[in-house]
Amino acid sequence: MKKVAVIMGSDSDLPVVEKAIDQLRALEIPFVVHVYSAHRTPEQARAFALGARAAGFGVILAAAGKAAHLAGAFAANTTLPVIGIPVKSSTLDGLDALLSTVQMPSGLPVATVAIDGAKNAALLAAQILAVEDADLAGRLDALRAADREAVLKKDAALCEKYS
Amino acid sequence: MKKVAVIMGSDSDLPVVEKAIDQLRALEIPFVVHVYSAHRTPEQARAFALGARAAGFGVILAAAGKAAHLAGAFAANTTLPVIGIPVKSSTLDGLDALLSTVQMPSGLPVATVAIDGAKNAALLAAQILAVEDADLAGRLDALRAADREAVLKKDAALCEKYS
Amino acid sequence: MKKVAVIMGSDSDLPVVEKAIDQLRALEIPFVVHVYSAHRTPEQARAFALGARAAGFGVILAAAGKAAHLAGAFAANTTLPVIGIPVKSSTLDGLDALLSTVQMPSGLPVATVAIDGAKNAALLAAQILAVEDADLAGRLDALRAADREAVLKKDAALCEKYS
Amino acid sequence: MKKVAVIMGSDSDLPVVEKAIDQLRALEIPFVVHVYSAHRTPEQARAFALGARAAGFGVILAAAGKAAHLAGAFAANTTLPVIGIPVKSSTLDGLDALLSTVQMPSGLPVATVAIDGAKNAALLAAQILAVEDADLAGRLDALRAADREAVLKKDAALCEKYS
Amino acid sequence: MKKVAVIMGSDSDLPVVEKAIDQLRALEIPFVVHVYSAHRTPEQARAFALGARAAGFGVILAAAGKAAHLAGAFAANTTLPVIGIPVKSSTLDGLDALLSTVQMPSGLPVATVAIDGAKNAALLAAQILAVEDADLAGRLDALRAADREAVLKKDAALCEKYS
Amino acid sequence: MKKVAVIMGSDSDLPVVEKAIDQLRALEIPFVVHVYSAHRTPEQARAFALGARAAGFGVILAAAGKAAHLAGAFAANTTLPVIGIPVKSSTLDGLDALLSTVQMPSGLPVATVAIDGAKNAALLAAQILAVEDADLAGRLDALRAADREAVLKKDAALCEKYS
Amino acid sequence: MKKVAVIMGSDSDLPVVEKAIDQLRALEIPFVVHVYSAHRTPEQARAFALGARAAGFGVILAAAGKAAHLAGAFAANTTLPVIGIPVKSSTLDGLDALLSTVQMPSGLPVATVAIDGAKNAALLAAQILAVEDADLAGRLDALRAADREAVLKKDAALCEKYS
Amino acid sequence: MKKVAVIMGSDSDLPVVEKAIDQLRALEIPFVVHVYSAHRTPEQARAFALGARAAGFGVILAAAGKAAHLAGAFAANTTLPVIGIPVKSSTLDGLDALLSTVQMPSGLPVATVAIDGAKNAALLAAQILAVEDADLAGRLDALRAADREAVLKKDAALCEKYS
Repeated sequence: MKKVAVIMGSDSDLPVVEKAIDQLRALEIPFVVHVYSAHRTPEQARAFALGARAAGFGVILAAAGKAAHLAGAFAANTTLPVIGIPVKSSTLDGLDALLSTVQMPSGLPVATVAIDGAKNAALLAAQILAVEDADLAGRLDALRAADREAVLKKDAALCEKYS
Repeated sequence: MKKVAVIMGSDSDLPVVEKAIDQLRALEIPFVVHVYSAHRTPEQARAFALGARAAGFGVILAAAGKAAHLAGAFAANTTLPVIGIPVKSSTLDGLDALLSTVQMPSGLPVATVAIDGAKNAALLAAQILAVEDADLAGRLDALRAADREAVLKKDAALCEKYS
Repeated sequence: MKKVAVIMGSDSDLPVVEKAIDQLRALEIPFVVHVYSAHRTPEQARAFALGARAAGFGVILAAAGKAAHLAGAFAANTTLPVIGIPVKSSTLDGLDALLSTVQMPSGLPVATVAIDGAKNAALLAAQILAVEDADLAGRLDALRAADREAVLKKDAALCEKYS
Repeated sequence: MKKVAVIMGSDSDLPVVEKAIDQLRALEIPFVVHVYSAHRTPEQARAFALGARAAGFGVILAAAGKAAHLAGAFAANTTLPVIGIPVKSSTLDGLDALLSTVQMPSGLPVATVAIDGAKNAALLAAQILAVEDADLAGRLDALRAADREAVLKKDAALCEKYS
Repeated sequence: MKKVAVIMGSDSDLPVVEKAIDQLRALEIPFVVHVYSAHRTPEQARAFALGARAAGFGVILAAAGKAAHLAGAFAANTTLPVIGIPVKSSTLDGLDALLSTVQMPSGLPVATVAIDGAKNAALLAAQILAVEDADLAGRLDALRAADREAVLKKDAALCEKYS
Repeated sequence: MKKVAVIMGSDSDLPVVEKAIDQLRALEIPFVVHVYSAHRTPEQARAFALGARAAGFGVILAAAGKAAHLAGAFAANTTLPVIGIPVKSSTLDGLDALLSTVQMPSGLPVATVAIDGAKNAALLAAQILAVEDADLAGRLDALRAADREAVLKKDAALCEKYS
Repeated sequence: MKKVAVIMGSDSDLPVVEKAIDQLRALEIPFVVHVYSAHRTPEQARAFALGARAAGFGVILAAAGKAAHLAGAFAANTTLPVIGIPVKSSTLDGLDALLSTVQMPSGLPVATVAIDGAKNAALLAAQILAVEDADLAGRLDALRAADREAVLKKDAALCEKYS
Repeated sequence: MKKVAVIMGSDSDLPVVEKAIDQLRALEIPFVVHVYSAHRTPEQARAFALGARAAGFGVILAAAGKAAHLAGAFAANTTLPVIGIPVKSSTLDGLDALLSTVQMPSGLPVATVAIDGAKNAALLAAQILAVEDADLAGRLDALRAADREAVLKKDAALCEKYS
């Protein structure tokens, strides 16, 4: 299976990014984790992006806050799908990171998920890899079914509690 | 090659969506176009989503404005990657559609592109299909190279004009 | 009397929704409580909405956060009045839920109340049922009068304290 | 059938409000139209609200822009359901009217629809009256079915055009 | 001297409003305090506004949160200057109260101060009363001078600390 | 009668400011008009503010756009009431001017009106001058009554048109 | 004198950027103009930034819209001052470009000016070069004086017109 | 070397401003610290700005919150580069300070950094002084290299932890 690259712009993003890591592990998807900064280590980020497809990666996750350029910097140097995770920081409630990630110019898409939406980023990466991987698609279907069952159980419990 | 489904919530979204269609054609990616509304034709939308993988689709594009639930409604009924295109309407400059599309709850990602970013949605769909399709990846690389050349030409022209 | 359906998108919304439940109880309006997710249990949500009028419901309350599609999903499958309660979550202070709930496309209204406004949602449901129920209208008038008295008492206390 | 009161804060709101009037007519719901200002004619507005239930009204629609207090002023003086239509004016794209209408304090709900959402306000009024009126509910169901057919036709046309 | 009326929409606004009260006391301006709600006690609010000029009031301060109609409701019923204090509540950081207070329609101004700006509201009331009261103007000048001295002292302290 | 100073930060603000001028004329309030910039002519602005009370002014109106510092600059140099008119410019729909005008720090209030609310600024100035001027208060009452009559006439016309 | 580099992310930004060019010319500051895209020509942008100081540049202006990464990309590859000009595009009124430009992470400042503020960007570049260039400082002072005179003339004209 | 003036509008801004002070010290750049308020001590602020170039200053940092006029007030009285630091206060998450600082009118730029971005303001001041100071430029390059190394170390650690 193609690997997923999980990149964060700063190790302070790890508490958010860990939810992506946990989800990838649960789905048995191979991944590597990196701290690359679009601004502090632009060469390393670029080199990684340029070589990612040849190195066996299928999807890149990039998490960053504030003027979040990380996902866009990866998108500029690869035609692999890049998923952007806007991270909420100390001001503006994540709106700066969301707009910096999603409003990409024509020609260079970033697949953006919700603010702090690392778990969904991992699921989206899995869905992308599952387009040609029926086994992984099956695991995603099973996860959905389990989610559904969990909601139905809660529904039954709450429904009874208030009847 | 897997097909791309291009869905719009209303035929008034067509001027935006056409840029996706043109891009898919230029990349020789097979696609179908539908008008399905999360609210007016929920059954048809759901039926399409449930059957999309079996029908040979690899990616779903969904464009909608205002309280844009279309992409989310598709995401709820398939584990194929769903790309959401928030469409600007008469008020709030597309912010309502952006937040309604991107802020999905945990478990159900929508790969969101910029407001009115239909061309990028098509490119993202192509990038997803190209994960396992070296030929399409090559076409995407060529497109990038052409884009780069176009910028360099404009640079040369403007640089000279002002020197 | 027609019943009220109180639906939440996740049991994590319960602390907000409980204020609606308390208010319905205080007004002696029959109700049921459900956890239905527009995304995780779309079929159950749809089935409930389609059958709600026949099952004796008069109003549906739907509370959800982030890209809050729950109220819209119910509105798409019934012509009963649907009241949407946007729930504040960890980012954007509820603005995402508000816009996702209120900015419905033409043809499918959602009666939206304030962010986290569950008590008002219950009162609105009561006002709707009271259009044809003079007894309930009387109870609502009494509640208003009690509210008024409470404000007047506080006015008297504060007015004296600062005179 | 109970009547619907259609109130606008200024006759400059008429182009928006006309869509509500057209929809009420199409559904054969009796209505009256008034220009009452929460600020310029507060006594008339209050008197109307206080007498509305006795005068045979079932629902009040109130459309206003900017610091839109009209719906709230009606809600303060009646326990009939009040539907607020935030009207976009020359600045802030209607956000001021939306927040002024929807963010009502506890105890006094306003059923808020989308910015400039007058047609939906009329439909919501109809849905409220239809809770106890099976005939009107039938007309609403027919309207939904017609809407659905219109979308399906457009889908067929577009689907063919691009195949 | 004319009196100042200090009105709050709910006694929960008192912690904010107390800063206005303290400032009025410090400037020896006579005042009364009331809890009047534009929605819960509209008649009392209106009666107070209609009689305020005759009762010897010169300025009205009105503090309220969320869809803050209180200042506007007073402005509709008197031609005395009304100062609006938008109060921050649990969501949207006070933006709802600010827009509901300041965006008044043509004909009915509300003199709006900063979110939670109760002290400034009291100073503005004093400035209004001081237009024709040289003694009060002198006290305001003295307050400014004291403020200036305080800043200069802090400047001297910090300047030395870092030299 | 005390005079009103009407200041704009740039003569490009004149189309907005003219509504204040017209209103002051209609109320027979003496005024002068100046273009003073907080940034381009800070000394002139400051000199005017410092001498305004002695020169017979009772209120200062200050209109400016973008990072609108004009009203605050006047407020810093006089204890006369300063009314700020935020002017909408080419971006952000006036939100920048509104926040720059209204969010004044503790100690220096600016009485802020709606974005582009020049007419209301003039009315507020008149209300301030009318605190001690029964004749002017009478003219303001008459204006209100005329406004009310105009609304009632429009109400009668529209009410009949749709009955 | 050190040169100024005027960079735009797309030649569609030229109408905005021309105001910077005109201002630099008027101040007789040497400059070059380039179209470099952070996303389409990342290598050229990076190479230019890395060599800019050695090539005799003193300041870099970077203008871009939407998720405006251009200024940040330059800032990451040089310690020359980088001035960012957020450009308004078709949605969100320039807020996306402003936040993407100004909210830079710790360690990599971008000197941000107003949305579409190209003239001010040129003036800021001149002010930076004038720190060690008394002659240029003199030209800036003269420009300020001319601006002041222009405002005073407009003041005299308007003041007379309305007296 | 030219000195840097570090100005804050209130000593309550010191916790933010201290990061600028620390950074200037680490770079061995001479500086002074002042508390000057655009509103409470306008004369002192103006006098300082007018004399700053002659007194040997090269750059002015100005930090302020809410309707943050401080940087603009300095910019109006000097042609030295002025760097504005918008400070987050108790409401609106710093958006008011950001817009009040960055949206300066044509002719008077303020080099704006991120909300609470004091460290970046100091770095920007250093970059400005380093345009003509190769030694300081060398220290800035060394700082960047150290930052890069720190990121690479964290990358190595995290990469190993998750492999």
